[in-house]
Amino acid sequence: MVVEREVVSMPRSQRRTLTHPEADELDVLDVLHALSDPTRMTIVQTLRADPERACGTFPVDVAPSTLTHHFRVLREAGVIRQREDGNRRWTTLRRDDLEARFPGLVEAVVTAYERQAPPPGSGAGQPH
Amino acid sequence: MVVEREVVSMPRSQRRTLTHPEADELDVLDVLHALSDPTRMTIVQTLRADPERACGTFPVDVAPSTLTHHFRVLREAGVIRQREDGNRRWTTLRRDDLEARFPGLVEAVVTAYERQAPPPGSGAGQPH
Repeated sequence: MVVEREVVSMPRSQRRTLTHPEADELDVLDVLHALSDPTRMTIVQTLRADPERACGTFPVDVAPSTLTHHFRVLREAGVIRQREDGNRRWTTLRRDDLEARFPGLVEAVVTAYERQAPPPGSGAGQPH
Repeated sequence: MVVEREVVSMPRSQRRTLTHPEADELDVLDVLHALSDPTRMTIVQTLRADPERACGTFPVDVAPSTLTHHFRVLREAGVIRQREDGNRRWTTLRRDDLEARFPGLVEAVVTAYERQAPPPGSGAGQPH
């Protein structure tokens, strides 16, 4: 089922240069820290099912400033990549980079998480 | 090579009841957080090679109060089990509990970590 969600525009004041670590600089401790939060894990689960999403469309129920923080933690750890297109910010999972540097790690982590929490889209969350 | 290390006694004032989560209550986010620190990862690596160790014998270079904090984070996440025997505290990895609840997770995490950091005993650390 495809759910249409409103794409929230980003105020010009919030736009800034987005920096990302290189693939060969990813640190597993940063990745583990980034994944140790339920909102950030929901973001990762969502991106595994849907490769690129606009920032206002994730099924998480947190304040915009909190969500911005979570995206920054994931981005600075190298888990996600973000790009701006006009007044929208788009997010992807850095699946190939993570798999090349830490084979099997993200899969093992998400599998473990899904043993205790259902993936998004199963009715437990609402789009923010 | 077997290295003999001094076992540090624990002052009576620091002794207290040690609580541990049940095996079926382990939370993967707590486990990931517990593993997202280099000192705590060194403790886990050490216990994988040597099943039970006294608390003063880990090859980490941090203050005793900091080490106590790291042990508590690992213990409360269910990664390690600690027991007191006289004035010594002994630590083991909860390998079977972790493997039963999150198959392959700790192995994947430690393997990823060892791609970027050598295991203890390779000369990089000193016993504290």
